[in-house]
Amino acid sequence: MSGNTLGTLFTVTSFGESHGPAIGCVVDGCPPGLALDAADIQAELDRRKPGTSRHVTQRREPDEVEILSGVFEGRTTGTPIALLIRNQDQRSKDYGNIAETFRPGHADYPYWQKYGIRDPRGGGRSSARETAVRVAAGAIARKWLQERYGIVIRGWMAQLGPIEIPFVAWEELDNPFFAPNAAIVPQLESYMDELRKSGDSIGARINVMARGVPVGWGEPVYDRLDADIAHAMMGINAVKGVEIGAGFACIAQHGSEHGDELTPDGFLSNHAGGVLGGLSTGQDVLVSMAIKPTSSIRLERRSIDKQGKPAIVSTHGRHDPCVGIRATPIAEAMLALVLIDHALRHRAQCGDVVTTTPKIDGLAPDGEQWPPSPR
Amino acid sequence: MSGNTLGTLFTVTSFGESHGPAIGCVVDGCPPGLALDAADIQAELDRRKPGTSRHVTQRREPDEVEILSGVFEGRTTGTPIALLIRNQDQRSKDYGNIAETFRPGHADYPYWQKYGIRDPRGGGRSSARETAVRVAAGAIARKWLQERYGIVIRGWMAQLGPIEIPFVAWEELDNPFFAPNAAIVPQLESYMDELRKSGDSIGARINVMARGVPVGWGEPVYDRLDADIAHAMMGINAVKGVEIGAGFACIAQHGSEHGDELTPDGFLSNHAGGVLGGLSTGQDVLVSMAIKPTSSIRLERRSIDKQGKPAIVSTHGRHDPCVGIRATPIAEAMLALVLIDHALRHRAQCGDVVTTTPKIDGLAPDGEQWPPSPR
Amino acid sequence: MSGNTLGTLFTVTSFGESHGPAIGCVVDGCPPGLALDAADIQAELDRRKPGTSRHVTQRREPDEVEILSGVFEGRTTGTPIALLIRNQDQRSKDYGNIAETFRPGHADYPYWQKYGIRDPRGGGRSSARETAVRVAAGAIARKWLQERYGIVIRGWMAQLGPIEIPFVAWEELDNPFFAPNAAIVPQLESYMDELRKSGDSIGARINVMARGVPVGWGEPVYDRLDADIAHAMMGINAVKGVEIGAGFACIAQHGSEHGDELTPDGFLSNHAGGVLGGLSTGQDVLVSMAIKPTSSIRLERRSIDKQGKPAIVSTHGRHDPCVGIRATPIAEAMLALVLIDHALRHRAQCGDVVTTTPKIDGLAPDGEQWPPSPR
Amino acid sequence: MSGNTLGTLFTVTSFGESHGPAIGCVVDGCPPGLALDAADIQAELDRRKPGTSRHVTQRREPDEVEILSGVFEGRTTGTPIALLIRNQDQRSKDYGNIAETFRPGHADYPYWQKYGIRDPRGGGRSSARETAVRVAAGAIARKWLQERYGIVIRGWMAQLGPIEIPFVAWEELDNPFFAPNAAIVPQLESYMDELRKSGDSIGARINVMARGVPVGWGEPVYDRLDADIAHAMMGINAVKGVEIGAGFACIAQHGSEHGDELTPDGFLSNHAGGVLGGLSTGQDVLVSMAIKPTSSIRLERRSIDKQGKPAIVSTHGRHDPCVGIRATPIAEAMLALVLIDHALRHRAQCGDVVTTTPKIDGLAPDGEQWPPSPR
Repeated sequence: MSGNTLGTLFTVTSFGESHGPAIGCVVDGCPPGLALDAADIQAELDRRKPGTSRHVTQRREPDEVEILSGVFEGRTTGTPIALLIRNQDQRSKDYGNIAETFRPGHADYPYWQKYGIRDPRGGGRSSARETAVRVAAGAIARKWLQERYGIVIRGWMAQLGPIEIPFVAWEELDNPFFAPNAAIVPQLESYMDELRKSGDSIGARINVMARGVPVGWGEPVYDRLDADIAHAMMGINAVKGVEIGAGFACIAQHGSEHGDELTPDGFLSNHAGGVLGGLSTGQDVLVSMAIKPTSSIRLERRSIDKQGKPAIVSTHGRHDPCVGIRATPIAEAMLALVLIDHALRHRAQCGDVVTTTPKIDGLAPDGEQWPPSPR
Repeated sequence: MSGNTLGTLFTVTSFGESHGPAIGCVVDGCPPGLALDAADIQAELDRRKPGTSRHVTQRREPDEVEILSGVFEGRTTGTPIALLIRNQDQRSKDYGNIAETFRPGHADYPYWQKYGIRDPRGGGRSSARETAVRVAAGAIARKWLQERYGIVIRGWMAQLGPIEIPFVAWEELDNPFFAPNAAIVPQLESYMDELRKSGDSIGARINVMARGVPVGWGEPVYDRLDADIAHAMMGINAVKGVEIGAGFACIAQHGSEHGDELTPDGFLSNHAGGVLGGLSTGQDVLVSMAIKPTSSIRLERRSIDKQGKPAIVSTHGRHDPCVGIRATPIAEAMLALVLIDHALRHRAQCGDVVTTTPKIDGLAPDGEQWPPSPR
Repeated sequence: MSGNTLGTLFTVTSFGESHGPAIGCVVDGCPPGLALDAADIQAELDRRKPGTSRHVTQRREPDEVEILSGVFEGRTTGTPIALLIRNQDQRSKDYGNIAETFRPGHADYPYWQKYGIRDPRGGGRSSARETAVRVAAGAIARKWLQERYGIVIRGWMAQLGPIEIPFVAWEELDNPFFAPNAAIVPQLESYMDELRKSGDSIGARINVMARGVPVGWGEPVYDRLDADIAHAMMGINAVKGVEIGAGFACIAQHGSEHGDELTPDGFLSNHAGGVLGGLSTGQDVLVSMAIKPTSSIRLERRSIDKQGKPAIVSTHGRHDPCVGIRATPIAEAMLALVLIDHALRHRAQCGDVVTTTPKIDGLAPDGEQWPPSPR
Repeated sequence: MSGNTLGTLFTVTSFGESHGPAIGCVVDGCPPGLALDAADIQAELDRRKPGTSRHVTQRREPDEVEILSGVFEGRTTGTPIALLIRNQDQRSKDYGNIAETFRPGHADYPYWQKYGIRDPRGGGRSSARETAVRVAAGAIARKWLQERYGIVIRGWMAQLGPIEIPFVAWEELDNPFFAPNAAIVPQLESYMDELRKSGDSIGARINVMARGVPVGWGEPVYDRLDADIAHAMMGINAVKGVEIGAGFACIAQHGSEHGDELTPDGFLSNHAGGVLGGLSTGQDVLVSMAIKPTSSIRLERRSIDKQGKPAIVSTHGRHDPCVGIRATPIAEAMLALVLIDHALRHRAQCGDVVTTTPKIDGLAPDGEQWPPSPR
């Protein structure tokens, strides 16, 4: 299987460079009969697109999606759905100096060593711009999951650099940070304003959850549901860590605390994060991830050039000082893509019966009422 | 691709239940000409096998491996290598009560819901016993990686429940915990003795690294080297979190701190954990993972039975009170399996040239001298 | 995907050499709940096993299968089913001279060039002995297809060297040739007796059909049902040609003859062989294949040795003078394996509804009453 | 793996309907550094495109290809190469009546049954128009195979309906039929003129060969080189039979005739068609296939409508009366795609050494001098 294809049955094959003519993907294996038009996809793309606040890259890309195939009279036909997004605001001259040197913390160096050639304009293939196609493909997945199983997938920013963001309410999420906490937004804004001035960048934590997943999705050994989620999330640019449920907190937990007790009314806690033995339990699937600080920064850093000679690198161009800010829709999309793939895999082997768990909705790992952060 | 097969080109297809006649696997895609006999594999299996100290399960399994195919006159032939390990010390009657109820925190419940049938004896397929075949397959992978590229893969326990284990020296690792710190072993032992008496279980942190990986292995988008590592590690029983390099610490880092500077003599730090843009950088690949506490404990817990009625569950049988204690060789094996797969994928697309990075060996993420823990 | 694994969802991963300790396979993706024991598989293996008549190899292999996993209390659990067949009647010394030279028409030469090493004993991995595991795996597939959809798969010998074998009746098939024509058997026997004396070998044509396949299984473009059947059949040792329905006869047909007309009572002919546009039509799936003559013959032939020097090769050992004689159960198994894989793929994407075509059963491609040969 | 992706390492993911906005594909896994521009691909597309003679469909499609990604400054970068061809001459109203009925011999019926929805305009996804993207992707494959290994791939028409076309010379191939025989072209033209008037269609035989393939490409068991070729060729619209080397003629051959003898100067014949035991032998790879007559014909035929009621179908629109006429470039492309995939698979497992066989070039299966037809 090629490295640019995600999934086993519901597959996304991605293409495109940041400053090439276009980016896009082919979505294959989509069930037929799903109502779908470009607006369904556009709505998700608009949540991720650049240039919407002063805290993200100022590149102006409308990210307008065209459906090239697989949809007839407003419904999916079961054939491949090709999605095309033309690049429109390339300023490749900004990257002239990057072509000869390697940005510290950036894919520049290993690309060059692997392929012996690379498209340096805007990061080429390694640009976070590629994540737009994940969001587009994910929009199809989440629509089907929602319509067929009632699954809802939501993400949010849980930490921006040193600032932890307590979960308050979904209703407060509508801000440039996807922070579920309106009161903290001014603090985030002034933090980012300072940061931008400094020419530096910062990391973030993103959480994402899926509610309504039936019991038993996943595979017990290598392709566990949580393993595939980890693969999908660590496969997002800049992610350096992934947790399911209690995550790293489980190290210091006893079994009598961590193991979620079960009653006829449902589980009493959710340290498992909705996955046991690689299979969904019917509880909320809870995922958390660490996003590293952007490697393209204005500050001067030591590096080498293509000849191996010392060089000082300072990146101008237009970059997100915190790639985590736009990462929430991407994380949601990736979770949707993993879930639909396992929905189809499950249906293949075990048939079309849906089993749900009696459950007390909204339990956080610690048994508190949801939705708090899964940490 | 079926859920019990790991890898794209170097594949491991695993089979077997804890109390069935045997466990084993088929390793396909192994390069021909590798010197290999059962002893090579047995050495690794012996590091993982149960019953070697009072801190692990007392099940007595010699874990003797038989090579059924793919080796002729002491060398791999390029055809599938089948490995067979007969189960010998099943005591299935210990599990009679488990067949009717679901252990909290255990795969029992979703297995039942998924398949409508399950082999409850010793956990069946969900038993950690399956990991023996990963270690066996990994032994082949690491031998080839070592011989062809000089790659060395090592893991260790970095934390046992509340006890952090400072890295002292590889030479001190030869203890039942894989703790690289001889002085701390008595503390670990008394902690485990207490725990065992209490009937409870505990989590752990395992680190693993690979030194000598050439630059450029991996795929830039979905099948990133780090994404495939995350998939492999989260696919180990009981793992709830995975980090590469700085991991979750990157959330609060600035780009000017996190991005590893590069000089003609090599990188000056390794926050990246040896992977940038999904490709290896030539630095040490650093992985850390969280292992949850065993779900099979003696303490009484609330649960339900197959009819959905309330039940009290207390697990006897023979279980590891901390599955993390035997996890180190498993994590090493999984890293070896991911690396060999990407070695072959890289060679397929880019040819057989090996590129290495000038590097200052033994740099931890914080630039201190290796080998400390990657956190 | 490794080259020794067949299928996408219902996968068979095969291992073993002719004179190694064992052959076998891992079957993954089998639906749970299927009643299965070793006798189900043994029945199919016994149809293929060597030594049952004077017209086949005299190697005495009981081909006794052991189920190592995936079955609990007589039912499949949805986990991998490992099947093991120990080799028992190796006489490797018969092959001493083959180790140094290459048999004309045999895989010896390219194996050596590919891997630089090969197991020459009995043909090693390239031996037709490997096909036993296909038959074993196929037995599981056909049982499920029969129980769930009522699909019946049957094959027969349609030609032995120059002797065409008119289809008479299924009831007459119980002879060493799988010839559906009792009257012709003496002619086949005397032909084979002559051939054996001569030290030469001969080809054959095998037909296989599946009745009761629902409409719509398959994929429209690359993984067409017929493409996957062609892959499976051409993947049987010694097959050099594959036809679906009218096969090569379609070259000289007009569209008005070839295109099967459709009425409310069903199709009026079956030139398509049950597949249109890569999808099953609900009619009988009709496949025909050409089996080349065995390359291991007693007659002296020119070849070269490992040093590239001229050599005269004459193969003794124990070989089938017509591998086609035992090929019928293998072809049936391969068709079953392709069908179950597409049954699961279809169910994944399109759900669990079964659609059947009103049909006039038993129509041959030419509209005559079935079951004649599909040519 | 999804059904619209071909290949394991060099993958082609195809999309598009006949009358949708566009067709295209994503080519992944291409080695970096290959010189490539749109003209390289256009040259192959022009060989296949419709409307170039009166014997093929009169639809006017320029089939102009746009490279959207994966190429930088005229060289492949190792990242996905997306190819886009806009549809320009749709006349969807011609197909109004097809939407309600099913053409005999056409994919209409099983599509409808499988998906419950279909795009009927011009055949939608089942249109032969999809094969343009195979030709485009194949152009990349053959360029790399030629540059790296000197492999030449050529196809030709060997039979048109009842007219066998003796191979004369490659130089005579430049005619609308790809017939390597200038003298026979007038006969082919008058045959087609008659046929077109009659409103009927006809089948054809296409041969294709690859010269210069190194020894040892392929996999010994399921993914044999010949099995993958059969999969690729049977996966072309309208193909009903595939042969390698002697093909069905091997049924009546003795082993002493069929097995190609080997001398220090090369093989003495090529009944094997360049593949033994699933691996290339270094000889010419010889493939032959049967193309059925087009199912869309003007003559009236019995069928049913979507309600299952009887209907008379007569297809107007613009169709090839013999799809075989344009099939030669498609068959060449498919062979190129299989070969490059196995080139990469071989390199992955066995390294980058190329082994060639001393050979007497141009030997037909019967030992006559090449290039005759492989039958």
